Amino acid sequence: MQKYICVKDLENAALELLPKATRDYYKSGATEEQTLAENSRAFRRLRIRPKCLVNVECADMRTKVLGNEVCLPVGISPSAMQRMAHPEGEVANVKAAEAEGTVYILSTIATSSIEEVARAAPKAIKWFQLYIYNDREVTKNLVSRAEQAGYKALVLTVDTPLFGIRRADIRNKFTLPPHLKLANFDGDLSTKIQSTKGGSGLNEYVNGLFDKSLTWDEIKWLKSITRMPIIAKGILRSDDAVKAIEAGCSAILVSNHGARQLDGVPATIEALPEIVEAVKEYNTEVYLDGGVTTGTDVYKALALGARMVFVGRPALWGLTVGGQSGVQRMLNIFSTELEYTLQIAGTPTIADITRDMVCHENFYCKL
Amino acid sequence: MQKYICVKDLENAALELLPKATRDYYKSGATEEQTLAENSRAFRRLRIRPKCLVNVECADMRTKVLGNEVCLPVGISPSAMQRMAHPEGEVANVKAAEAEGTVYILSTIATSSIEEVARAAPKAIKWFQLYIYNDREVTKNLVSRAEQAGYKALVLTVDTPLFGIRRADIRNKFTLPPHLKLANFDGDLSTKIQSTKGGSGLNEYVNGLFDKSLTWDEIKWLKSITRMPIIAKGILRSDDAVKAIEAGCSAILVSNHGARQLDGVPATIEALPEIVEAVKEYNTEVYLDGGVTTGTDVYKALALGARMVFVGRPALWGLTVGGQSGVQRMLNIFSTELEYTLQIAGTPTIADITRDMVCHENFYCKL
Amino acid sequence: MQKYICVKDLENAALELLPKATRDYYKSGATEEQTLAENSRAFRRLRIRPKCLVNVECADMRTKVLGNEVCLPVGISPSAMQRMAHPEGEVANVKAAEAEGTVYILSTIATSSIEEVARAAPKAIKWFQLYIYNDREVTKNLVSRAEQAGYKALVLTVDTPLFGIRRADIRNKFTLPPHLKLANFDGDLSTKIQSTKGGSGLNEYVNGLFDKSLTWDEIKWLKSITRMPIIAKGILRSDDAVKAIEAGCSAILVSNHGARQLDGVPATIEALPEIVEAVKEYNTEVYLDGGVTTGTDVYKALALGARMVFVGRPALWGLTVGGQSGVQRMLNIFSTELEYTLQIAGTPTIADITRDMVCHENFYCKL
Amino acid sequence: MQKYICVKDLENAALELLPKATRDYYKSGATEEQTLAENSRAFRRLRIRPKCLVNVECADMRTKVLGNEVCLPVGISPSAMQRMAHPEGEVANVKAAEAEGTVYILSTIATSSIEEVARAAPKAIKWFQLYIYNDREVTKNLVSRAEQAGYKALVLTVDTPLFGIRRADIRNKFTLPPHLKLANFDGDLSTKIQSTKGGSGLNEYVNGLFDKSLTWDEIKWLKSITRMPIIAKGILRSDDAVKAIEAGCSAILVSNHGARQLDGVPATIEALPEIVEAVKEYNTEVYLDGGVTTGTDVYKALALGARMVFVGRPALWGLTVGGQSGVQRMLNIFSTELEYTLQIAGTPTIADITRDMVCHENFYCKL
Repeated sequence: MQKYICVKDLENAALELLPKATRDYYKSGATEEQTLAENSRAFRRLRIRPKCLVNVECADMRTKVLGNEVCLPVGISPSAMQRMAHPEGEVANVKAAEAEGTVYILSTIATSSIEEVARAAPKAIKWFQLYIYNDREVTKNLVSRAEQAGYKALVLTVDTPLFGIRRADIRNKFTLPPHLKLANFDGDLSTKIQSTKGGSGLNEYVNGLFDKSLTWDEIKWLKSITRMPIIAKGILRSDDAVKAIEAGCSAILVSNHGARQLDGVPATIEALPEIVEAVKEYNTEVYLDGGVTTGTDVYKALALGARMVFVGRPALWGLTVGGQSGVQRMLNIFSTELEYTLQIAGTPTIADITRDMVCHENFYCKL
Repeated sequence: MQKYICVKDLENAALELLPKATRDYYKSGATEEQTLAENSRAFRRLRIRPKCLVNVECADMRTKVLGNEVCLPVGISPSAMQRMAHPEGEVANVKAAEAEGTVYILSTIATSSIEEVARAAPKAIKWFQLYIYNDREVTKNLVSRAEQAGYKALVLTVDTPLFGIRRADIRNKFTLPPHLKLANFDGDLSTKIQSTKGGSGLNEYVNGLFDKSLTWDEIKWLKSITRMPIIAKGILRSDDAVKAIEAGCSAILVSNHGARQLDGVPATIEALPEIVEAVKEYNTEVYLDGGVTTGTDVYKALALGARMVFVGRPALWGLTVGGQSGVQRMLNIFSTELEYTLQIAGTPTIADITRDMVCHENFYCKL
Repeated sequence: MQKYICVKDLENAALELLPKATRDYYKSGATEEQTLAENSRAFRRLRIRPKCLVNVECADMRTKVLGNEVCLPVGISPSAMQRMAHPEGEVANVKAAEAEGTVYILSTIATSSIEEVARAAPKAIKWFQLYIYNDREVTKNLVSRAEQAGYKALVLTVDTPLFGIRRADIRNKFTLPPHLKLANFDGDLSTKIQSTKGGSGLNEYVNGLFDKSLTWDEIKWLKSITRMPIIAKGILRSDDAVKAIEAGCSAILVSNHGARQLDGVPATIEALPEIVEAVKEYNTEVYLDGGVTTGTDVYKALALGARMVFVGRPALWGLTVGGQSGVQRMLNIFSTELEYTLQIAGTPTIADITRDMVCHENFYCKL
Repeated sequence: MQKYICVKDLENAALELLPKATRDYYKSGATEEQTLAENSRAFRRLRIRPKCLVNVECADMRTKVLGNEVCLPVGISPSAMQRMAHPEGEVANVKAAEAEGTVYILSTIATSSIEEVARAAPKAIKWFQLYIYNDREVTKNLVSRAEQAGYKALVLTVDTPLFGIRRADIRNKFTLPPHLKLANFDGDLSTKIQSTKGGSGLNEYVNGLFDKSLTWDEIKWLKSITRMPIIAKGILRSDDAVKAIEAGCSAILVSNHGARQLDGVPATIEALPEIVEAVKEYNTEVYLDGGVTTGTDVYKALALGARMVFVGRPALWGLTVGGQSGVQRMLNIFSTELEYTLQIAGTPTIADITRDMVCHENFYCKL
């Protein structure tokens, strides 16, 4: 794995290895993919303002999320059907997270079950990503099983009444490969990602089963069935962040669903500051995913107020290239790059990364 | 038609099918085509700020324009000589609008007559686009016939004392193909789009026949000969919008004539906000055309205050590719994309699309 | 000439026809040619805000400069050694200006003499561009001859203590072709554009002969030897514009010498507004050259306060392609494009072009 | 050397001549090389505002740095291991600086020793760049030897607790070529730039030997062992500049280490103004390196308050192409370009370059 020295290396290798339909599924964004590009580009518009001659002998990347210590402020975002990338799929992924001491978020529509994943990495900090099905018994069952299996938080996706338009999936008539199942379900629910109307099988599945009528009141119900803290994933506006907190959520994951839901929404690093500002008085943790591919991206998000960042596609690239080792390599790359950044920026610990360490490029146009 | 999944697909297919002179005529903009490019690019500079966990079960794209309900806030802008694209031309186009429940605007210089179009789609909401000829009897005749035939509004083009410089038409010495006629006229007026001076035949026609001395006083005369409401098409400045209303117009269509008149004018989505602001106190409907190719473009225009948008070239691409079915496919694509947008943005009905749902990208540079 | 329908067509044709050293000499800008590109690009950042339904039947492009009526607010800027482009050089150029009723500015370092040019086009409005030689008798002689020959103004170049670094000329060891002479001089002064030190022959000439010690006091001396009004050419700052006027200049030509003097200076259309603002109280005419290639460029400069614009390279391209007819074609293209612009923008005469007709693109980013 | 007429020419030639590992080592920036590109691009966003009709007969590029007169405000920045570029390495480089009357800064990790360099160019103004080794005796030895050998200042690198991630060096497993040594050291310290862990040998060396625990207190110690003035190299923030001065530094070198330390930091010309502003009250000299490749770049830095600029890579390109003559050619190019700039901008001496001579491009967007 040593030959892959940056996330881009892993991506390039993975894109070569994956069959077309899977590759397209993983890499696509909504419609014209403007936001997909912006998720990365927006990081490039920020500048780090390094401090000199600070004692950085003891760089320390540990931080706490929801009370749990992680070795690295980079966790793994939920992505669906990871066995399409590698035979061990979610299991390899969670083991990598365990080995590197970070958080793994399992998707509802995973190809490994809640229990399998828990068993594979008992010491990993595992969170469970939840889609709410029309059939509330199905939902309730997922939640209880996750709690039972030791998952530490519920990551409720709040941006998905249906799945966005991903043109490649439509053209490919994307379906779950026949040897795989949605492992958290039985019967139809586990296999129905099939294209019967000539478009994306995944969109058919979601349109048929997910509840489009959800409101913030749902949080109350969720809290009535679980003691796990709830993280609202998919927030892009400060008013929604406040609603989430007032509805009972414990944390906010600023996300645009990998730019896969609606094209033209802000890059997540663009949306972050207003949300951090809005929740300041509640003392709520804010996380971010979307477009993070380097250690400096992580650093910028932390400086703007994220407690932790999550990466989705980078884990899939690592998984494709080398299973658990590939994911660990990916995490190691982030770890190395972030450690260099902490040291060269003169902020050896996470707590040292104050808001003034990063500015928008426009800061330098005032001349 | 299912294989065309976005407007760009239809455009690409149409550009392959059309003969060079027609293709160039349809796709060109004025001189250097800077505004042509900006009409699209300006939409890309806007961001949608989606709301989460809103009940979006009942998405509803219906709206009312000038008192008539449409199923979709996307109508068909006038474009000249549509039988160059397909043998059924305007007739196929209006039937598609009828089938999809939206507005069709017939051009004065159409290759199907006012009456033919009316007969073909009796239930469609039809508006008639008017150019004022030097010979006012000609003009009067057009207006009465449109009113007689059940057209619901007069769309007066206010940006065309003459036609802009379209270099490809000059190079091609553009003429109306010999088997076609301007169907609303007899004799010379119906065939004179001929290049006799070595440039664009269309420009010769327009320069010879259109009245360059028009002022806002003309509205008074028009109102004296028809009861149809008058929509001023081609406004790009707030002061002109106010003049139009004070002169008696019932609505404003913000347009730069498909970027075909004067290069360097603003993109229509750039011009929209100041016009919406200016007419607010008059409670006048504002529409927009120009550069709209996706459902998110429609959404952005509505958020900035347009009651409805119109598309010209997309209808021509659909028409070229599949006649009536092609145009319906185009409208269906917009419908699907807009419905997704309404749902994922958390604004299930048109009325829900408040101004704060969209911002300029600069909003995110204030950091 | 009809096949050339825009200035770019003439440019492309000319670049194919010219021998390398001449082509490079004409088209180059200083060092990295950043300003050369900006001269055009800066026009693209401006938007025209057209007015609708204005009576534009009587478009009129006439204006007055220094009391003389011109048919078109586009004159011909001085450029050196025009016989390199065409055997008739300056003579063909001035005849074109005469035929089209506009101003021709003859360069000091022309390949046709002051008198030849005057004889060729007795009715043209001719101005004489002046470089001040170390030898003041030489200078005085030029000025008296120009006045004698009926030139109407002295265009004093104020940005050229020496010629800028033009890399192509250095690489080509640019020299005046042996069959040509600087026709305003005798002996050495007429032939010395020779590369003896392995760089640009023109730079050697200028460095050896031009007076680098000039200050604004020189205007006084010039006024003592001529009654021609003096136009200061090469101003890019408001304070210099005021100095020019207070020193006795009658008009300002905002110019960066075709981006040939110093790379990194502002585009001329960028510099124009502050200068117009600064000289407002003096009621002084301001002109502009640099990067003007379309009728909308002319319009934008007029809207920002220029009384007239001048074009250098476009005349050279026309000259190369067709001698006098080529230059007339170039002027006709500007004339046609500007007339369309006046009419479609709803400002039929030059006096109608008020400041609000044009704005910076940023005007549309305030959203 | 005459055929190289700009720094880019030297760069192109050098890149062809150098073996891959050396070429990559010299040209690379940190990780994604965003800052590397910005170091140049940021200069392009500044505009020079030239003044006309100033007597520029006596252009004079002399200035004083730390009390020493230089003929040109362009010195040579430290870069490591210059014998990789040319057999005479640092010796050729310093001789060029001596011949052209400017400053040469010798790197700690040079392939020629402090004494060799001093002997080769006794009259050159030599400064010694210092890295502080964990072993303070090593450091002390370097400092005393430099003072002894007549170096006039200590340039303390303050941005390098470790070396940045340079991907090419990792891929190349960069090592010091076997025939070369770090000439300021004996034994291991002189040869240890070896890749033993499969990455960059240089990073291994630095990580093992440099002191990561340095703080501004270290300046006190340095001042206790030398009378040379100390220049803090690598400052990018105004607060750090103030800290440096208050800790006892005599000057500030604004630098991002050739964009080699941390990607995403500001371009040096972006960082310069806030630092100049902050140190104004201390009357401290400020220098700059990074991205300077033309005379107008030098001019812009001086206008924004730098007393002198330094160039690293340009010296390496000159050295590669022609040893001492190549470096002199490079300095001559800067000298010529800067002299032209002084004259055409109407500011014949360094003292004439006031702050208003340069503005940000945004200055011209206020329209």
